[in-house]
Amino acid sequence: MEFNPNQRQGAVKQITSHSNPIVKEIKGLVAQRKHRRDSGLFVAEGLKLATDALEAGWGVRYLALGPEARENKTALDAAAKAKARGALILEVSNAVLGAITRRDNPQMVVGVYEQQTLSLADITPENSTTWIVLDRVRDPGNLGTIMRTGDAVGASGVVLIDDTTDPFAVECVRATMGSLFHMPIVRCSSDEFISFRKNWPGPVVGTHLRGTKDYRAVQYKEPVLLMMGNEQAGLSDKLADACSDLVKIPQAGQADSMNLAVATAVMLYEVRRDYLKL
Amino acid sequence: MEFNPNQRQGAVKQITSHSNPIVKEIKGLVAQRKHRRDSGLFVAEGLKLATDALEAGWGVRYLALGPEARENKTALDAAAKAKARGALILEVSNAVLGAITRRDNPQMVVGVYEQQTLSLADITPENSTTWIVLDRVRDPGNLGTIMRTGDAVGASGVVLIDDTTDPFAVECVRATMGSLFHMPIVRCSSDEFISFRKNWPGPVVGTHLRGTKDYRAVQYKEPVLLMMGNEQAGLSDKLADACSDLVKIPQAGQADSMNLAVATAVMLYEVRRDYLKL
Repeated sequence: MEFNPNQRQGAVKQITSHSNPIVKEIKGLVAQRKHRRDSGLFVAEGLKLATDALEAGWGVRYLALGPEARENKTALDAAAKAKARGALILEVSNAVLGAITRRDNPQMVVGVYEQQTLSLADITPENSTTWIVLDRVRDPGNLGTIMRTGDAVGASGVVLIDDTTDPFAVECVRATMGSLFHMPIVRCSSDEFISFRKNWPGPVVGTHLRGTKDYRAVQYKEPVLLMMGNEQAGLSDKLADACSDLVKIPQAGQADSMNLAVATAVMLYEVRRDYLKL
Repeated sequence: MEFNPNQRQGAVKQITSHSNPIVKEIKGLVAQRKHRRDSGLFVAEGLKLATDALEAGWGVRYLALGPEARENKTALDAAAKAKARGALILEVSNAVLGAITRRDNPQMVVGVYEQQTLSLADITPENSTTWIVLDRVRDPGNLGTIMRTGDAVGASGVVLIDDTTDPFAVECVRATMGSLFHMPIVRCSSDEFISFRKNWPGPVVGTHLRGTKDYRAVQYKEPVLLMMGNEQAGLSDKLADACSDLVKIPQAGQADSMNLAVATAVMLYEVRRDYLKL
C-alpha cells in the first residue's frame, strides 16, 4: 500500500493503567467474538505479524509497543509506518501487554487490525490454484494451522462454511504465524457454496468416510476446491454430495482418525504435488 | 493382558472433597512434570482413552468415574476391568473431575496410568517400519499430534532425544487421542542415538534447512529413521550429520515454515507411501 498524503496521520499515546479505555477495548477484542464482530477489528501478537500485516497492506488501528520494542529498530520502523497510515501508537508497560493478551511472557508488540474477508463472488477460478473449503471447523488452532499450511503450499485461500470458528480469534491468528495476512478468507453458507460450486470448472474433492477412492488416485488439475469437514462430524451430507470426488487417506495402525490440520496438509501436498518444486 | 488371579484386586472409594489426598495427588500429576517423573504415573482424560489403555494392557492406578460414567455400560465395564487389575476406582462428583483436569466441561472418566517407555536397545530394525525421531520437541500438542499421525500411518514408535516435552503431559496425551497407548516411546540422548544409528540398516532421513534434496526424491526402503528437529532450531548439527539424507519439503507462498506436526505428517505419508493402501 502506498503512502497516502490525504490520510489522517496517527498519534502516539502513553498508557500505564490497565483500566485505560483503549486497553479495555483491546482486551474485549481478545476475549469476545462479539466485540470482534461488532467492531470489525482483531488482535495479533508479535512484531513479525505486525511487519506481515503492514507489508500486506492491512489496516492498523493500534500498535502497542512495550519497553523493549521502543529500543528495537524493526519495531520502531513498523510503528512509524503504522502511524503514517493513521494508527494510534500506544507506548505501554510489559504488565499492560501481558494483561491484554493474558500471557506471562507477552510479545513486545501487539497490534489491532481491521478484519478483511471476501465473498464467493470475489473468487475467479481462472486465477485460482486450490481453495481450501472448510465445513464448520471448530478448533481455532486447527484453522490457523490450516491457513499456515495453505500459505506454504501456495493455496488461493480458505472458504469458511456456516458456523466456523472465528479466524480472527487470537488462538487462530497465533497458529497462522502470520499467514493470516496472506491467505484470503471467504465466508458463506452451505447453500451459497453449493450454488457457487455449480460453475466451478475444476475438481471438487472432499475427504469423507464414504470415500472409496484413494486420495492419490484423483487427477488434481487446478483450479481445485478441496473440501474438509468438521473435526467430529466430517463433511455434511449435502456438501459431500456436491463433490466431484470423495476420497480417503489410507490409515494403518489403531488410530481412528487424523487431526484435521494434519489431514488437510496431507491432502494439500497431494493436490499440489505436481506444482511444488524445490 | 490376561486376568491374573494372583494380582491384588482393586477397590472402590467415594470421593466428594477436593482436598482428598488422592485428588491432590492426581492434580499434582496434571500440573507438574516432577510429580509425573517421581511417581512414574500420568493422567489421561476420557472413556475412550481408558478403553484404549486397558485393551493395550497398560497399568491403571486409579479410574475416576463421574456420575454419568456410573450409568454408562462401557464405563462400568472399563471400571470392572481396571479393578480386576488392581486399580482403585474413584466415584467422584463432576466438580471433582473438573478440578482435577482444570476444565469447565470435564470428561466423565479420568484415569491415572503407569508410564511405559523403552530404550534404544529394545528397537529391532528387522521388526521396524519407520521410527519418528524427534530432537528436542517443545510443544506438547505437536508431540501428541505426531504420535497420533504415527499411529495412523503404522509407524513403529517415537524416539525422543534430549530435552523433549513430556509425552505424559496432559496436553500431549489429549492430542494423541489414544494413540499414546499404541505408540512405543523411546528416550535417549543425542550421543546414544548417534551410536545406535551406526548399525541401522536403512535410510536415516532428516528434514533440514541445509537439505538440498526434494523429500520425494529419496528411496524410503524400510526400516527408516525419520528425524525431525525442534520447532525453532530444527535438527542439531550433530544429528543432521548423522543422517544419510537431508531433505526439504518445497514451499510456495510467503510462509516461513510449516507447523512441526504438519511437516512430520507430510514426511510420514511420503515415507510410507508405498506401504499404505486403502
